[in-house]
Amino acid sequence: MDVRESFEHIMSEQPNMALATMTSDGVPDVRVVNFCWRADTSCVYFSTFPDNDKVREIEANPHVAFTTVPATGNAHVRAKGICRRSTFTVGEIAEDFISKVPAYQGTVERFGDQLVLFEIEFHKASVTIDLAHSGTLKL
Amino acid sequence: MDVRESFEHIMSEQPNMALATMTSDGVPDVRVVNFCWRADTSCVYFSTFPDNDKVREIEANPHVAFTTVPATGNAHVRAKGICRRSTFTVGEIAEDFISKVPAYQGTVERFGDQLVLFEIEFHKASVTIDLAHSGTLKL
Repeated sequence: MDVRESFEHIMSEQPNMALATMTSDGVPDVRVVNFCWRADTSCVYFSTFPDNDKVREIEANPHVAFTTVPATGNAHVRAKGICRRSTFTVGEIAEDFISKVPAYQGTVERFGDQLVLFEIEFHKASVTIDLAHSGTLKL
Repeated sequence: MDVRESFEHIMSEQPNMALATMTSDGVPDVRVVNFCWRADTSCVYFSTFPDNDKVREIEANPHVAFTTVPATGNAHVRAKGICRRSTFTVGEIAEDFISKVPAYQGTVERFGDQLVLFEIEFHKASVTIDLAHSGTLKL
């Protein structure tokens, strides 16, 4: 499997990423969140309630980094990017989440009108296939 | 299970954390690494080869954040701290890693003399037990 194929596979299979943000103190913070990736926009998406530290940190400083979190093995994608509120709604992208995280169906039904959607635009990704194979992908 | 018990359980059971660092560009970066925690020092430990971006970032700016990565469920520990080379060697702390990550035995045997050990000192942790139960722990 080449780097692009591995990227597509990881981004469509792994449900979680660790999202690193900057705090107002100039130190990093990090959380694990569900994500989905859309090939048509080349963006990563995640949803969140609007009133929390993560949102405040992103709105004050949009520079973020993420790494996908493999359930087993070592395959993962890492990138740095710019994070902003998406022009998509949570409802418009729900199917992409639900295909990876079936429990997200219930989240959308219960909280969909409260959640806000963020997107991360990135143009370069580090793709680790296994301990011996990795590469950089331009997007 | 109370917050301290949950903290001890998560830190002794979960093998991986997402480690957020600062780059020289002032933006965050993040990787998933194995870790262990020692109650006697109240520090988190991770090993790494000495010549990589992660080490350079930490040595230029020791402010880091981490979140443990649950294999299933939502239980995790998050904290911010100061990261530095440990006075312990990888060999001195290998048993703590191997108890969580059996494959680390082979890593130590093959690369133990090349790896360097880092520790994160932190004095406050956010402990999430499940979606309804969480708390802050002072250490």
